[in-house]
Amino acid sequence: MTAAGSGLAALRAQFPVCARAAYLNAGTNGPLPAAAGTAARAELDHELEAGRAGEPYFQRLLGLMEAVRAGYAARLGADPADVALTTSTTDGVGRALLALDLRPGDEVVTSDEEHPGLLGPLAALQARGVRVRVVPLAAVADAVGPRTRAVACSHVSWRSGAVAPAALAEVDVPVLLDGAQGVGAVPVDVAALGADFYAGPGQKWLCGPGGLGMLYVSPAMRERCAPPAPGYLNLADPAAGLHARPHATARAYDTPALGAAPLAAARAALAVLDGAGWDAIHAHATALAARAAEALRARGREVLPRGATTLVTWREPDAPARCAALAEAGVLVRFLPGEDLLRASFGGWSDDADLDRLLAALPR
Amino acid sequence: MTAAGSGLAALRAQFPVCARAAYLNAGTNGPLPAAAGTAARAELDHELEAGRAGEPYFQRLLGLMEAVRAGYAARLGADPADVALTTSTTDGVGRALLALDLRPGDEVVTSDEEHPGLLGPLAALQARGVRVRVVPLAAVADAVGPRTRAVACSHVSWRSGAVAPAALAEVDVPVLLDGAQGVGAVPVDVAALGADFYAGPGQKWLCGPGGLGMLYVSPAMRERCAPPAPGYLNLADPAAGLHARPHATARAYDTPALGAAPLAAARAALAVLDGAGWDAIHAHATALAARAAEALRARGREVLPRGATTLVTWREPDAPARCAALAEAGVLVRFLPGEDLLRASFGGWSDDADLDRLLAALPR
Repeated sequence: MTAAGSGLAALRAQFPVCARAAYLNAGTNGPLPAAAGTAARAELDHELEAGRAGEPYFQRLLGLMEAVRAGYAARLGADPADVALTTSTTDGVGRALLALDLRPGDEVVTSDEEHPGLLGPLAALQARGVRVRVVPLAAVADAVGPRTRAVACSHVSWRSGAVAPAALAEVDVPVLLDGAQGVGAVPVDVAALGADFYAGPGQKWLCGPGGLGMLYVSPAMRERCAPPAPGYLNLADPAAGLHARPHATARAYDTPALGAAPLAAARAALAVLDGAGWDAIHAHATALAARAAEALRARGREVLPRGATTLVTWREPDAPARCAALAEAGVLVRFLPGEDLLRASFGGWSDDADLDRLLAALPR
Repeated sequence: MTAAGSGLAALRAQFPVCARAAYLNAGTNGPLPAAAGTAARAELDHELEAGRAGEPYFQRLLGLMEAVRAGYAARLGADPADVALTTSTTDGVGRALLALDLRPGDEVVTSDEEHPGLLGPLAALQARGVRVRVVPLAAVADAVGPRTRAVACSHVSWRSGAVAPAALAEVDVPVLLDGAQGVGAVPVDVAALGADFYAGPGQKWLCGPGGLGMLYVSPAMRERCAPPAPGYLNLADPAAGLHARPHATARAYDTPALGAAPLAAARAALAVLDGAGWDAIHAHATALAARAAEALRARGREVLPRGATTLVTWREPDAPARCAALAEAGVLVRFLPGEDLLRASFGGWSDDADLDRLLAALPR
């Protein structure tokens, strides 16, 4: 398979960086489509000329927020009313964990291959007396015990590309999924996953600007929890002062201030991907990643056990130096800190030539 | 005084919106200088072409963060090591209040003229059993009692332009100042104010893009508190997992992800204002606001008691409708929700003609 259908060839052409590099690091930041830059420039021009005050300005900003929220919700299989806008996966993880209001002695179950964006907030809770129990990702559902108040783990592991167990849908405590390598990379259905919170990024697989992300908050969790520090736009009745209540929708969990230009860029990036079709994107990217894993194994590399996802991680001697050498050769992957592991990330914009370029640039 | 010196006339010329409107609402969002748009566009172009991965990309992003941090720190009279980057004043207020880890029965003193961005987080704490005591702004220092664990109030009131009492520098509990109408509008010296936390915006008086702000965290508070949900960039040793510790500097309190283009725009806006000179900006804006207050009183308006700040608030019948009519006439002010009050905000870019235009557009 080469062209991946004319739809995906047309998609690739919209990412300027793909013309010069084998861009295999959407797991950190996706490539930006040209349309995102155009949209951000137009929004900046409008702000420069018209100013940023008055009812028309705020209606325009709120319209951008709702458009991006709807776009994120579609990727989560969720209602827009259940999706908050954040600055990043980590921001969403933090809002969710703080909303749960865990107390000393409460237990959270997590896995042994989590990102610092989840482990950092968990470490902060641990310092306040919360017990954090670490088990293999495949075992997180079975590890739920009588003191467990929540499970917090990856949907798709940033380290290996492994997937959280389906049994999470059956546990009877709140489940927070870190979707940094999930949403936009693979199909997501928050209800089927059993997620009460699902935190995701806008700048990785959705190819938006830095500083935007999402947090799904289920209606049940909104009944049970409260946002930790709601601001003006999070409040249903901001003029009510100390009696103000958060919105009933997930807007209550929005990051309090987001810029118009990044929102316009995020909306434009979503439209580019929508135009190519998500079924085609998912099928192409996971198939290409699977072929990469196979090819790396055929080259004698140890590939970490993974799921049907868009990440491929393998052992490579002197991984940081090899990563830099690959970058010199126009192949952008990442190394994982503290281990001799390289990780390649494949998206709808990737093609066989990117994979060939990676393989050609690796030592025999 | 008209020209405000050639330095400020040159400053005004850098704000496109000032050519078409009397832009008197920096208290909501400042005017954007053309250089901010140029800088954001250049950063977007770089991201589009070069991608957003690898060491050079991250060094560039971190460089932008440190430049903006240094610029904010200069406006706070603070060391950059004591300043975190946030998305907004509200974001900073939330991080500070959550770091204090207040418990049921603890008391926070605040004032009766606070913004929802402070009252919302306080209401959330109140719902968890924290006692919130509300007194006039002038009385917040005297109200500190044996159960008081913190004072949280405006530096400059968003409602009236009144200033927090100097006696706050003497209280022996942590002081969190909401600097939304302070930093960039008036000279700020966090040590002289006695602030342990000072939260401020980047998009008001510093004329940066939406979605950036600052939080000063004193060294003493960093010893005593911990950031509520630190992510990768907040951690000194992110690879240490659940043993990771936050940075010793205020970077520990940074919002976990910020976009490069907004950071570049913020840096450019700071350079524009730096070029005009902050002493000149502060002297001009506060003098113009004082003349506005005087002129409004001479026109029979009741002006709210205020300080030597850049805000002027007065009673006006049907304030929301009058605000819309003024906007039609090219005069951008704001109304305060729930009261018949209009508020005008004056900056270094404002001139006598803006004030004349406001006065001419108001009914006799």
